[in-house]
Amino acid sequence: MTDDSQQAALIAVDWGTSNFRAYLLDRDGEVMAERAAEQGILKVSDGGFPAAFRAQLGSWLAPGLSVLMAGMIGSRQGWSEAPYVACPAGLEDLASALHVVPGDLGRKVMIVPGLSWRDKSGVHDVIRGEETQLVGLDPAPERRVVCLPGTHAKWAIVEGERIVSFSTAMSGEVFALLCQHSILGRLMVEQDCQDDEAFARGVARAKDDGGLLHHLFGVRAQGLFEAEPVTGLRSYLSGLLIGHEIAGIETVIGDVGHVTLVGAAGVRDAYAKALELSGCGVTIFDGGSAVTVGLWRIAQRAGLLGVKF
Amino acid sequence: MTDDSQQAALIAVDWGTSNFRAYLLDRDGEVMAERAAEQGILKVSDGGFPAAFRAQLGSWLAPGLSVLMAGMIGSRQGWSEAPYVACPAGLEDLASALHVVPGDLGRKVMIVPGLSWRDKSGVHDVIRGEETQLVGLDPAPERRVVCLPGTHAKWAIVEGERIVSFSTAMSGEVFALLCQHSILGRLMVEQDCQDDEAFARGVARAKDDGGLLHHLFGVRAQGLFEAEPVTGLRSYLSGLLIGHEIAGIETVIGDVGHVTLVGAAGVRDAYAKALELSGCGVTIFDGGSAVTVGLWRIAQRAGLLGVKF
Repeated sequence: MTDDSQQAALIAVDWGTSNFRAYLLDRDGEVMAERAAEQGILKVSDGGFPAAFRAQLGSWLAPGLSVLMAGMIGSRQGWSEAPYVACPAGLEDLASALHVVPGDLGRKVMIVPGLSWRDKSGVHDVIRGEETQLVGLDPAPERRVVCLPGTHAKWAIVEGERIVSFSTAMSGEVFALLCQHSILGRLMVEQDCQDDEAFARGVARAKDDGGLLHHLFGVRAQGLFEAEPVTGLRSYLSGLLIGHEIAGIETVIGDVGHVTLVGAAGVRDAYAKALELSGCGVTIFDGGSAVTVGLWRIAQRAGLLGVKF
Repeated sequence: MTDDSQQAALIAVDWGTSNFRAYLLDRDGEVMAERAAEQGILKVSDGGFPAAFRAQLGSWLAPGLSVLMAGMIGSRQGWSEAPYVACPAGLEDLASALHVVPGDLGRKVMIVPGLSWRDKSGVHDVIRGEETQLVGLDPAPERRVVCLPGTHAKWAIVEGERIVSFSTAMSGEVFALLCQHSILGRLMVEQDCQDDEAFARGVARAKDDGGLLHHLFGVRAQGLFEAEPVTGLRSYLSGLLIGHEIAGIETVIGDVGHVTLVGAAGVRDAYAKALELSGCGVTIFDGGSAVTVGLWRIAQRAGLLGVKF
């Protein structure tokens, strides 16, 4: 590989709440090199973003390539706030609304805006970071349901390159809170791996009468009577929450049918299992590659590839 | 009032997770004196219960009256575990299953057992303390829906003196967790009082599509866009959770219709408002008097009134 055959064309950055990831991309969007650090925006103090930026990207900055960033770096708590673009919105809308980071950084440094949506009751929802993954998927002409699991899981309806609407579910954060701080956590023990049977019982429980707030107390009562082994309580709770999330989302978008799951292994696999138990088909897409492809496509549309200043 | 006209017949104790409350009752169940301390079972170390008991009751113990206790004092984390009695169960079942606290305490010291229940899927539920309040209500021949709000709210079906079934909802604990530890709490500000309009919008939101886990994220998104004033976010969340609790319970017990609400002011009034907004009728019953009446009725049935040893 020489500079002639593969020349860097873009620095793509995924800067979230907990992590910083950067990729050096060539003209075809191939990853030439990557860097990662546990330096999410919560670890950077106010005013510290330009220094953290230079420290992380180092020698990559020499040629004066443009930098395109996605994620919470564009939030109010990030470096510079990139206003939301309203859904439906596609690649073109994102590319034409890139937010320029102010200051003398020796190059174009831009942030992909997040997306906003209001449901039929007028209630707001927001995405920041996942819009880039969504436009990084292989475009398909038909309507697709895409799920991006995480602390705040996102469910989007995508048609071609267009994000039609989306819904967020707080299941990941609620799971962590209940394990760490609630009476349910007190009964739990460390688990080396998922207990698949307990997880499936949790998914099934979500279909019962009573609602989530009642079913949560059942996690404790089942533990007290050893009807669920304490070694499986975390998995049971995880299945219960994901099962409720899927049932809730189905009331918004109708029968889910087939879901494109985007994300890293682990939680993504738990969602795949819950969806299969709920009778849904699943296609898995790697979350990391969705980010780089999405950033590259947006940069290409915005004319940022290979631009030097 | 002389010893002749009003003679103590029972020491009734409500000993819960956070609080200790004791009442000196006469033969008719009238409260002659009461004591309260923030000395719930979590504040008493293992083996410290006999000493805490003597310190709190002091001079009341001199005549050798029986002591009847209810609440978490009978749990595994309490003084001595009182096994659960399975529902349906009534006053008679509780009175004949009183748990004798072991040790030389110079009198009969007994604990009212909690109740257990398994729903049609076989999932367990438990009550400890509220069974005593339930048998302390004015007995009515017809089927009643009784709600006891709290950290873990209890919904019971009561027929006469018989508790037919019940369901627990973790709404109170989930509300506290979300306010204290979640991303929702970060947007919130201290509220001097309930924001009734925001609370009503939360109750209404619970009726929308999407499910609780989606609606929770909406609390944040509405706050971000200032569609809900940050001064009302706690009330909005409270209404959302109670609204979901009521909707969930209705899937178990059918149309709620009319609810007897038992508890102290504050959270009880929030439930009353949410129930009224959901088209339910409400009768309010004071939680404190339900405990003393319940303990007195059980003691009477068990032949403990006025017994001295």
